[in-house]
Amino acid sequence: MQTKTVTVKVNKHCYDIIIGPSLVTKAALQIKHSLHRKDFHQMRLAIVTDTNVASIHLETLQAELTKNKIYTVPIIIEAGEQSKSFSTLQTVIDKILAARLERGDCVIAFGGGVIGDLGGFAASIIRRGMNFIQMPTTLLAQIDSSVGGKTGINSQYGKNLIGTFYQPQCVITDTCLLDTLPPREFRAGYAEMIKYGLINQPDFFEWLEKNGQKVFSNGPTRIQAIVRSCQFKADIVARDEYETGERALLNLGHTFGHMLETATAYDPNRLIHGEAIAIGMILAYQFSAQLNLINPTLTQRIETHLKAMGLPTQLKDIPGKLPNAETLMTFIAQDKKVSQNDLTFILTRGLGQSFIAKNVPPEAILTFLKQKLAEIS
Amino acid sequence: MQTKTVTVKVNKHCYDIIIGPSLVTKAALQIKHSLHRKDFHQMRLAIVTDTNVASIHLETLQAELTKNKIYTVPIIIEAGEQSKSFSTLQTVIDKILAARLERGDCVIAFGGGVIGDLGGFAASIIRRGMNFIQMPTTLLAQIDSSVGGKTGINSQYGKNLIGTFYQPQCVITDTCLLDTLPPREFRAGYAEMIKYGLINQPDFFEWLEKNGQKVFSNGPTRIQAIVRSCQFKADIVARDEYETGERALLNLGHTFGHMLETATAYDPNRLIHGEAIAIGMILAYQFSAQLNLINPTLTQRIETHLKAMGLPTQLKDIPGKLPNAETLMTFIAQDKKVSQNDLTFILTRGLGQSFIAKNVPPEAILTFLKQKLAEIS
Repeated sequence: MQTKTVTVKVNKHCYDIIIGPSLVTKAALQIKHSLHRKDFHQMRLAIVTDTNVASIHLETLQAELTKNKIYTVPIIIEAGEQSKSFSTLQTVIDKILAARLERGDCVIAFGGGVIGDLGGFAASIIRRGMNFIQMPTTLLAQIDSSVGGKTGINSQYGKNLIGTFYQPQCVITDTCLLDTLPPREFRAGYAEMIKYGLINQPDFFEWLEKNGQKVFSNGPTRIQAIVRSCQFKADIVARDEYETGERALLNLGHTFGHMLETATAYDPNRLIHGEAIAIGMILAYQFSAQLNLINPTLTQRIETHLKAMGLPTQLKDIPGKLPNAETLMTFIAQDKKVSQNDLTFILTRGLGQSFIAKNVPPEAILTFLKQKLAEIS
Repeated sequence: MQTKTVTVKVNKHCYDIIIGPSLVTKAALQIKHSLHRKDFHQMRLAIVTDTNVASIHLETLQAELTKNKIYTVPIIIEAGEQSKSFSTLQTVIDKILAARLERGDCVIAFGGGVIGDLGGFAASIIRRGMNFIQMPTTLLAQIDSSVGGKTGINSQYGKNLIGTFYQPQCVITDTCLLDTLPPREFRAGYAEMIKYGLINQPDFFEWLEKNGQKVFSNGPTRIQAIVRSCQFKADIVARDEYETGERALLNLGHTFGHMLETATAYDPNRLIHGEAIAIGMILAYQFSAQLNLINPTLTQRIETHLKAMGLPTQLKDIPGKLPNAETLMTFIAQDKKVSQNDLTFILTRGLGQSFIAKNVPPEAILTFLKQKLAEIS
């Protein structure tokens, strides 16, 4: 299977996403190529990773780098969303500074979205910006969070409220790593792939309806789907790095999704990010249907595919009790997509016809949420 | 006295430093102009300031903004370098998020270098970057730290090791604020003005030798000196925002200076930043003389002017005991200007002929520090 490259162009900065099988065992050469360093043997490389990834893949990566005479500093943090915190950030930064890494040295984020967001944020603020490389290990990270340079941690006031825009020197996407990913995590990543189709690529959604099952097993179809997803996101980011315009389309399903993640206290036993997005997208479609923007049968079609792939689609699919509609609204209001007290949602006018709806009245959302909660009570 | 404007051009971003008397009482119009907002009355403005500035000037600023119907959120932190910490940063961020400020709202840093560095850092990472305005209240901040977009906090491993490059929307420099500045703080800021002459503007140094005393009292000479200093720094920053080249010249006196600040544990009773830079510049000149780059009489000339302005120039001017040379070297080694284990210093070949000296052997510095310590023992 061939290695593919997607190039991301952001302002003056240009870097590659390398996508293919078994790239961890060939990482040294790629890192060398991306950092343009002559004194490669003098480089220090911090590998920020989590307990899950470390137990399966860290040894392989370290062996490859050590073989190529790169000094590595592994920094292993607890797996899970709770690590996107101020205290874990400080721990990671302290370890990198204690190991005396300099600006021209490099931080590798070797893990899923949490590791990419946290490691990238640390790299962006140590010595006002160090070299940084993403090595995403989950489907979600490979097609979404590793592309586009958003970094961040959570605050008690909401998700990702503290962070930077910081582009890496390269992204190394080893598709074989997905073989050890728990199936539930894979499905959650797949929800974001569906999202790309729903935003403005109806042909990609139709392709996924036909080929989705094949994406779940290693092979050229999986790589093809990852390449197409990365290319799609890279193109949006290239046109709108700082999310002043169309990049907001990527938030399809995310305002409702973040609301549900907050409502379930980021408890992965109840809901993980991609699952929240799956339900969030259905909510966005249902709300669009209520506004007569689409025919409800379209929502059913999307729901059928999500269900076929094993994803939750409704509030009743979330284990445990949800708060009332008024409380859910407060979670939405503190979400970062709020601008000047008007609510911004990504709604849709048809398959692959999403758009940014500003000035959505909070009352309409509240009424909608009350309905949805009534359906499951 | 007329208000002057220095324009800073950094990449695509361009903003003004407005310099003149009594600008605090005219701030609302300038803020409005800089933020390009139509819904000015809906804006929330966080004023990050410290206990000292708040007790003298906060009421005036708040009155001006309230009069112009701007909603303000004052955030008052403890005065002093110890506030450039992770915990104070987190407090400031939490207060800004608790007050529900959004990306298009604004953080004003109303204070000296500590407030500018801390407030700017907070603004740069909240919601991945909020609007930010500097209102420097010390001479040091007005001519140096408010110009150029460096933000940051300190780490246990060194000063300013965590931060960002983040340019403000504008800088409002009210020269009347300096009338309430303690004379020692004023002198410390003046040391950085001398530095600008010594870097590559011999005529400015000579002008300061003649007019320095007048800079200490309010009037056109002071404004002229501040405008020239800002223009000089803005030009360097425009050519080298990320300090990959000549911006490093601004570190004249800083490697030794930071070493002394670490050695005195940032205790303002012993040493404040500008004083450390005054002594650091003399050390850099003495070291240059040892390398036969300059005649020692030049060092004496600089020292004469620094002393005449009431600044310390020698290690013996620092109250209390200093650590030994080996310990001082460890402080230098962790300083962020270290690159690949070679030491980089700003040295000089004459008045206004500073240059970046890479590969300075650590042994030579160690020997030099031993000599200097022996002279005072």
